[in-house]
Amino acid sequence: MTTTIIKPKVLRIGEIDFAHQKWKELAEVVEVVKCESSNREEFFKDLKTKYLDITNITRSFASIEQTGRFDEELVSHLPESVKAVSHCGAGYDQIDVEPLSNRKIQLSNVTTPVEAPTADVAVFLILSTLRNFQIGHDLTVQGKWPKGGKCAGAALGHEPLSQTVGIFGMGGIGRAIRDRLTPFGFKKIIYHNRSQLSPELEGDAEYVSFDQLLSESDVICVSIPLNGKTKHSINSETISKMKDKVVIVNTARGAIINEAQLLENLKSGKVGAFGSDVFEFEPEVSQELLDLPNVVSLPHMGTHTYESIQNMEEFVVDNVFSHLYSGKVKTIVPEQYNLQFDETPLLAK
Amino acid sequence: MTTTIIKPKVLRIGEIDFAHQKWKELAEVVEVVKCESSNREEFFKDLKTKYLDITNITRSFASIEQTGRFDEELVSHLPESVKAVSHCGAGYDQIDVEPLSNRKIQLSNVTTPVEAPTADVAVFLILSTLRNFQIGHDLTVQGKWPKGGKCAGAALGHEPLSQTVGIFGMGGIGRAIRDRLTPFGFKKIIYHNRSQLSPELEGDAEYVSFDQLLSESDVICVSIPLNGKTKHSINSETISKMKDKVVIVNTARGAIINEAQLLENLKSGKVGAFGSDVFEFEPEVSQELLDLPNVVSLPHMGTHTYESIQNMEEFVVDNVFSHLYSGKVKTIVPEQYNLQFDETPLLAK
Repeated sequence: MTTTIIKPKVLRIGEIDFAHQKWKELAEVVEVVKCESSNREEFFKDLKTKYLDITNITRSFASIEQTGRFDEELVSHLPESVKAVSHCGAGYDQIDVEPLSNRKIQLSNVTTPVEAPTADVAVFLILSTLRNFQIGHDLTVQGKWPKGGKCAGAALGHEPLSQTVGIFGMGGIGRAIRDRLTPFGFKKIIYHNRSQLSPELEGDAEYVSFDQLLSESDVICVSIPLNGKTKHSINSETISKMKDKVVIVNTARGAIINEAQLLENLKSGKVGAFGSDVFEFEPEVSQELLDLPNVVSLPHMGTHTYESIQNMEEFVVDNVFSHLYSGKVKTIVPEQYNLQFDETPLLAK
Repeated sequence: MTTTIIKPKVLRIGEIDFAHQKWKELAEVVEVVKCESSNREEFFKDLKTKYLDITNITRSFASIEQTGRFDEELVSHLPESVKAVSHCGAGYDQIDVEPLSNRKIQLSNVTTPVEAPTADVAVFLILSTLRNFQIGHDLTVQGKWPKGGKCAGAALGHEPLSQTVGIFGMGGIGRAIRDRLTPFGFKKIIYHNRSQLSPELEGDAEYVSFDQLLSESDVICVSIPLNGKTKHSINSETISKMKDKVVIVNTARGAIINEAQLLENLKSGKVGAFGSDVFEFEPEVSQELLDLPNVVSLPHMGTHTYESIQNMEEFVVDNVFSHLYSGKVKTIVPEQYNLQFDETPLLAK
């Protein structure tokens, strides 16, 4: 058992669906405080009263409804006692890292558990857009097959063997996409990343410049994190460098694409099809975009499975446990790789 | 150049979309006769006049509209000169093999070119059904995301890691499906086939009995040919042996499934989802079936790509060339493997 003077307090923001057993284990060594603030203002007030002395925070993607973004303002309200924030998601664009770093608060995200389910979405969207499957399905359900002729009149698709896929962002998700695409026999898989990967991480994918990725890809698959530098990376200017009838697939974050400019390029026919799990202003999406037959839209289902949610929720608790016993969260975000933190464990093993 | 006394005559039934160059090459050594009969009656008449002396026949899936099935009656009308029929498709259920065999007419189908594009459809349907992607897409397009909550209210899906896939029919297409599914990390891939494959063909898939396939699979993927023995292999009785909420995916032929009985099992909830590219009475499909939210329907798009159609059309001509110069079609159907034919080449090399 543990021996400490003050019991650490973990503030849990957002609901838990499946990791009840794991939270029970955590509750044996810490005090778990559920965030019951119903809005940002109340949250700030509660931080000074109910949530005093909290050492760790866990938060979910949906909990932004309760607290708003984890920005400089919010961070300024966190008690001095907070040492680590553990986010239940891969993308942490709801959180500003700098104010946390300035306060020497560690930030962790969820890495491996999201890779497979998100990559599965990307493969689905690539197949659907390349082969016009959504269009074929719609025509069938509309009863247009009997009179519509072959394949209900859906246009011919393309096969992987004639297509170059460009993976934009070759982190864990990008690599999981590459692994799944390999047996489909694409003509070529190229990728662009902040820096070229080591040969063993790179595998059969070929590193190219961003401009090459734009000009050589038949299918561009977006899997980069959203931040100030990557916002609107796909816009009218970058689209103009792409092949005519390029297929764009996005399983990262909507705002990586300038959605209004994309819509214009879909309407003009420059972009041949768009498959996306994420949208710039989701859950609000332009109905005009959604109604285009060559747009395959999903409502942010990247990790919408029993298994992922459980795995992610448990991964968050693992980060808390890691911080409690070693002074370091398990998967600190890249922006904090080289920073110094107080790594005194809050609990002794 | 070739030296023959009588120039072989190839009757081409059905249109050519892309393999024009290849047919031009063929036309240099044979006489190509286009079938212009508009119905079965006219076809039978034309066989006695316009199409006299034809040695080879090529036919497409769609050409059934012109001639009807290649059954005993039709075969009885073929001139004595016919030596080989080359079908442009993997499934040749529109053709009765026995009357052809009795007449010592060889039959070839298209093998390798259909494997990849058909397997791609199967993977798409598996991902769509397991993850409720079609439901998510429909809710999004219907504008139900903003008020529908997380993922527009789509139910949680399942991930490969928790799922056993059973491949029913481990021919070229079944193996191509297995190869594509491997990197998704399914819990287990099992298969049933007329006979167990050799270890190198079997790969990581595990051979099981038909009953085991039914009872152990979370996802059953149909890829067997349709014939008298396989018709309605999936029916109320076999479905009753499956797991509750089983997912069924069909990229083979509709009539392998008793569609009326499947519909009842979808409505009762016994079958959790159905993804299909083929239907028993296609292009006619029960609207009640199509309207079920957990049915992902495609209008027979298995090989509906520029690349497949060209590859298949060229493959048919390769079969004709092979027969002309060697006396044997390249890919004779399994039912004729052990039969003896007159293998005198019609052309000398």
